[in-house]
Amino acid sequence: MALSKCNRLSGTLIKELLDSIDSVLFDCDGVIWRGDEAIPGAPQVINLLKKNGKRVFFVTNNSTKTRKMYADKLAKLGFNATEDEVFGTAYCSAVYLKTVSKVKGKVYLIGSNAMKQELESVGIDQVGVGPDPITGTQIDWVNVALDPDVRAVVVGFDEHFSYMKLNRALQYLTNPECILVGTNTDTRLPLEGGKAVPGTGCLLKAVETAAQRKAQVVGKPSRFMFECVASQYGLDPARTMMVGDRLDTDILLGTNCGLKTLLTLTGVSTVADATEHLQSGCPERLGMVPDYYVETIAELLPALQG
Amino acid sequence: MALSKCNRLSGTLIKELLDSIDSVLFDCDGVIWRGDEAIPGAPQVINLLKKNGKRVFFVTNNSTKTRKMYADKLAKLGFNATEDEVFGTAYCSAVYLKTVSKVKGKVYLIGSNAMKQELESVGIDQVGVGPDPITGTQIDWVNVALDPDVRAVVVGFDEHFSYMKLNRALQYLTNPECILVGTNTDTRLPLEGGKAVPGTGCLLKAVETAAQRKAQVVGKPSRFMFECVASQYGLDPARTMMVGDRLDTDILLGTNCGLKTLLTLTGVSTVADATEHLQSGCPERLGMVPDYYVETIAELLPALQG
Repeated sequence: MALSKCNRLSGTLIKELLDSIDSVLFDCDGVIWRGDEAIPGAPQVINLLKKNGKRVFFVTNNSTKTRKMYADKLAKLGFNATEDEVFGTAYCSAVYLKTVSKVKGKVYLIGSNAMKQELESVGIDQVGVGPDPITGTQIDWVNVALDPDVRAVVVGFDEHFSYMKLNRALQYLTNPECILVGTNTDTRLPLEGGKAVPGTGCLLKAVETAAQRKAQVVGKPSRFMFECVASQYGLDPARTMMVGDRLDTDILLGTNCGLKTLLTLTGVSTVADATEHLQSGCPERLGMVPDYYVETIAELLPALQG
Repeated sequence: MALSKCNRLSGTLIKELLDSIDSVLFDCDGVIWRGDEAIPGAPQVINLLKKNGKRVFFVTNNSTKTRKMYADKLAKLGFNATEDEVFGTAYCSAVYLKTVSKVKGKVYLIGSNAMKQELESVGIDQVGVGPDPITGTQIDWVNVALDPDVRAVVVGFDEHFSYMKLNRALQYLTNPECILVGTNTDTRLPLEGGKAVPGTGCLLKAVETAAQRKAQVVGKPSRFMFECVASQYGLDPARTMMVGDRLDTDILLGTNCGLKTLLTLTGVSTVADATEHLQSGCPERLGMVPDYYVETIAELLPALQG
């Protein structure tokens, strides 16, 4: 394969690349779908990759859905996919807490019902999901009722995030044995039309600032997301490709784990962004330069059909 | 005066120091009071300083009270003080927006009723005070109703801080002409017994992370807090002393503005903290080393009575 970076993937290079890999990790939003619509041609690409003997996984920092919810959405949009192939941060955080942190106790969860379900499915109880409105004054906040069994604070996306939740997290984290885990550090959730809403990274930063601690982060670009898939399926990094639309999460994850990397331009990052990283001369920015890019993953179709 | 730093203030040095200054800036919590109780001897110190012809000011990062509320509290605890001598970040932020930002429009305020009142008293309208609960989904959040007259987002202490407020701040700040101002960056509000609740710095960090901007900060150690007093009263920095309990706000403000600095040990920071900064060999940490320290400002009493 070419050693240079950021190559336009086309022609015979596509077949060559596909022959060099056994497994493909796809980010979801901006890669195989946008909002509630599949990227045209994406279901056929995924389904043909599998038909051609490749293993396919769906790797997303979104913490608001369970594996089951993702599998349902994939099926509805025409993707041939099973729950076991979905690695979202709701599921991966539960695995992380169970296998890496080996947390013995409950989780104080700033997060979604989906995270609650994934935690419960690995046998970890949580407290905290849902609204937590403010009452009283400082003296009440500092003496807020805490669950004595909590051993970890976990921060994912939570539209009920509030000062009281931030305060409760701080009170739990004054115990140095209580760990702090974040699903991901994405600062914004991009929507159509260049608009965005605040992402989990904002909530996590508030908690880190209060607790004066850095969180252990599960999601991309943390290596754990790949290791979570690799350990279950015995993946060979050298024969695995990461396909994503974000340089700072998807492509950096791929680089961090020694995977081949493919940027698709149907989402957040542009070729200009990648070129800027490439030309920066800054070693830590080089990890955000993909091996290849395509306009859309539909460009893989001819090689798969041929 | 001695050129060395972090001297224990005692004996004849006290009288010498007092003779060298015309004005004294006092932080409040941890310096002249703790919670709702005056530090023993503090009212007498303040009242005698004034009787001896010194000008005294109260300079606090707390944004939850108006000047009037502070004056009332000071009077109740036995301090001879007027509204005009109080410089809290609720008031100073209003002055900053009026005189430095020269904001032409409304403020989207993440903050207290006290901030609302101080803004209104300089003729700036605000929207945003009070609870702002979440409804709907992402598409509703990104299209949330905005006030077209808003030209600044201001973040102070707000116990009603919520995901919706964070989102609203982000939507306003996508307009590059909308400025971002923070009252202060204190990460925690310390209470008795070593406990604390999250401070404005946590909320500001969440907004900065969402907006991908750095805020203009009004409170200590920003020079503006001193300039706000100095411009109104014509203070000479060389003949002004800053008295505080925090190295990273009070003492650093004093250093930044060329004031004499006195640490009092009735609050957050310790002599060991100061010594650590002094011995770090790090130029930017030297600014957090006070000229002098006392156990309590009551130690100034004999020199003032004599």
